Amino acid sequence: MNLDLFVPAFVNPAGSPIRELFPYLARPDMISLAGGYPSLSLLDAHGLRTSAQRALALGAGPLQYGATEGTPDLKEQLLLLCASRGITATEQDLLVTTGSQQAFDLLVRLFVQAGDTVLVETPAYPAAIQALRMAGAEMVEVPMDAHGLMTTELARIVDALPPSSRPKLLYTVPAFSNPRGTLMRPSRRAELVELARKHGFLIIEDDPYGEFVFTGDRCEPLHVHGHRLCGADNPVIYLASLSKTVAPALRVGWMVAPPDIVRRCTVAKQTVDLCTSPITQAIAADYLRSGRYAPTVRSSRDEYKRRADTMADSLMLELGGQVHFERPEGGMFLWLESADPLNAQSLFEAAVNQGVLFVPGAAFFPVVPKAGCMRLSFAATDVDQIREGVRRLSRAFRIASKVV
Amino acid sequence: MNLDLFVPAFVNPAGSPIRELFPYLARPDMISLAGGYPSLSLLDAHGLRTSAQRALALGAGPLQYGATEGTPDLKEQLLLLCASRGITATEQDLLVTTGSQQAFDLLVRLFVQAGDTVLVETPAYPAAIQALRMAGAEMVEVPMDAHGLMTTELARIVDALPPSSRPKLLYTVPAFSNPRGTLMRPSRRAELVELARKHGFLIIEDDPYGEFVFTGDRCEPLHVHGHRLCGADNPVIYLASLSKTVAPALRVGWMVAPPDIVRRCTVAKQTVDLCTSPITQAIAADYLRSGRYAPTVRSSRDEYKRRADTMADSLMLELGGQVHFERPEGGMFLWLESADPLNAQSLFEAAVNQGVLFVPGAAFFPVVPKAGCMRLSFAATDVDQIREGVRRLSRAFRIASKVV
Repeated sequence: MNLDLFVPAFVNPAGSPIRELFPYLARPDMISLAGGYPSLSLLDAHGLRTSAQRALALGAGPLQYGATEGTPDLKEQLLLLCASRGITATEQDLLVTTGSQQAFDLLVRLFVQAGDTVLVETPAYPAAIQALRMAGAEMVEVPMDAHGLMTTELARIVDALPPSSRPKLLYTVPAFSNPRGTLMRPSRRAELVELARKHGFLIIEDDPYGEFVFTGDRCEPLHVHGHRLCGADNPVIYLASLSKTVAPALRVGWMVAPPDIVRRCTVAKQTVDLCTSPITQAIAADYLRSGRYAPTVRSSRDEYKRRADTMADSLMLELGGQVHFERPEGGMFLWLESADPLNAQSLFEAAVNQGVLFVPGAAFFPVVPKAGCMRLSFAATDVDQIREGVRRLSRAFRIASKVV
Repeated sequence: MNLDLFVPAFVNPAGSPIRELFPYLARPDMISLAGGYPSLSLLDAHGLRTSAQRALALGAGPLQYGATEGTPDLKEQLLLLCASRGITATEQDLLVTTGSQQAFDLLVRLFVQAGDTVLVETPAYPAAIQALRMAGAEMVEVPMDAHGLMTTELARIVDALPPSSRPKLLYTVPAFSNPRGTLMRPSRRAELVELARKHGFLIIEDDPYGEFVFTGDRCEPLHVHGHRLCGADNPVIYLASLSKTVAPALRVGWMVAPPDIVRRCTVAKQTVDLCTSPITQAIAADYLRSGRYAPTVRSSRDEYKRRADTMADSLMLELGGQVHFERPEGGMFLWLESADPLNAQSLFEAAVNQGVLFVPGAAFFPVVPKAGCMRLSFAATDVDQIREGVRRLSRAFRIASKVV
């Protein structure tokens, strides 16, 4: 593979970086640390089968078109889930979407015209970058460190923007970012909300991983900070998903936003897919009501923690002085930076030859790709595969460092 | 309701015309001839339940993310369905979409920049109008008569466009148009393909209703004409859906297009919803494989024909000299035009008061709303409701004609 494909300017429309990895996944001996998906073995297949049976036993009702906003039944369950995260919302504030990917895309359609400035916490989720690029957004990178998006840097960046480039939106994954895995600290969350209020931009908080916290209590969503600090003028739009906690194939996500934004996104969603599948909405509503959600999430979280620790320990053992990373506090990802300059192409090729796959870091930067970094996922592989995958990766590092 | 909402300029972003009708549907005595959805009682709930059980009994596989292109299993079944309609296609030509609404939206994203000229067979499906309006398209109306889109008019219209307004796309529902219900004649289909070739525009053929033909053999899709006349340069992109034939709630549609267009739509779909629900894809694939599709479609078609005939007969009986319409040859809709000028607002209000609902014709015109017309659907009501609904409509006509 030519790594040029990972340089953003070349990504669209020829292909997307993650898709370019697909052919390598077919190799039977390949250990993929590249995926961004949950572990199949941790999904509650039995519970979902039972929910599907119950949902479809109710007659033909769930076979018809549903309201674009989402079925009342599922909305009720999602509002309860929001409440468990501290988020106060009513039916008018919530839109069910076909995955949270769609929620982001609807917001981009609504708010971003070609040439508009959008702030993007970087490194960032490639499909978000891609959606913004397709809309013609001028993306401005906001750096992160181990404590999440750097608010002092953000303040400096926004102050330096010319008046013609006032940002409309900021995109962030504050809880266990994809790809960086970091948890944004509460003080920074409050500072971010204040900056949004001061400069009049909206914050899109994407929260697919927040329930997979390894260190104790869950951090309050940005949305809660926004509500506390700004009341009805909360600048935070909250996106969430059942894809990582229940099953990706449901394609059920949701948005919590002021009623006016929900209404406009609903009208846009009509032209996009009319409604999210009422069948999978009925399955999701039944599953949430069944009481199986919380224990399933807990056991997934415990296993992801075990896998994350295994990955961190193996990396220390095999690649100790050669890489920098932070031990994951939650989520599904570990962000690895090489201590020494390495040729990215050589490293990737060596890794593929050794039978391990990762996502090269360039895929996660909308403007200036950073060298010598990569995303590793510990979610979809078991601990033995992780240990072996890291051993293969360390061999690839040795091979690539001889090339330099 | 203020009928101004039906005038296109006011439709977006405040709301969409069809949504404005929702409150009236809650009235328990209301007979709705306004819907654009299949009859729940004709959907094969038992067969779909069985397919769901089989699909989810296979283990956790269908719970994961799927390929953006669609699952191989469903694609295989959809290619067989295409073949039964005369359409030759391979795996590379097919993209599974979240309803055919999404297929249209992806194409609009791919091809339409603000200010681009798009030809729209008129009267047209409101969600297509809305998607084009959101993209900033300059819509040019192409009139229809009882034999479908008028190709001689189209030739005249395209010739009269300035070189700066060369059309990129033409949108048509050649088989039992929504809302006009007409079947485009084969000679016109060939002429349309020739015009597309001559002027270099693509044809988007939307075919959700083609299997519901009341008069005998199915008409060849435009795509077949395009293949015959232009070979590999076929200008026709074919969109279809299981929403009317199997169940809307599956949200399964598809596109047949040249591989390059499929590839670019696939990349766009990644940012839109990543993939269509692999759960509903698995249910759909199992259902198509089960052999229940063809008999279900046949019995739906027979019942829709009975309902269409009932509606046509009742209209002749109750409103004979006062309206013009064509007896439906298929599909789900009947297009009614008033013989005398009537105040649209008065007619709509009188109808609501009498307890019958229709969609005022203005909703179907992107540029110049035509007065004195409406869409009636015979699909979702039984024959007794249709007879009573038409009686109520005739009372509304009497009341409204006194107002004039």
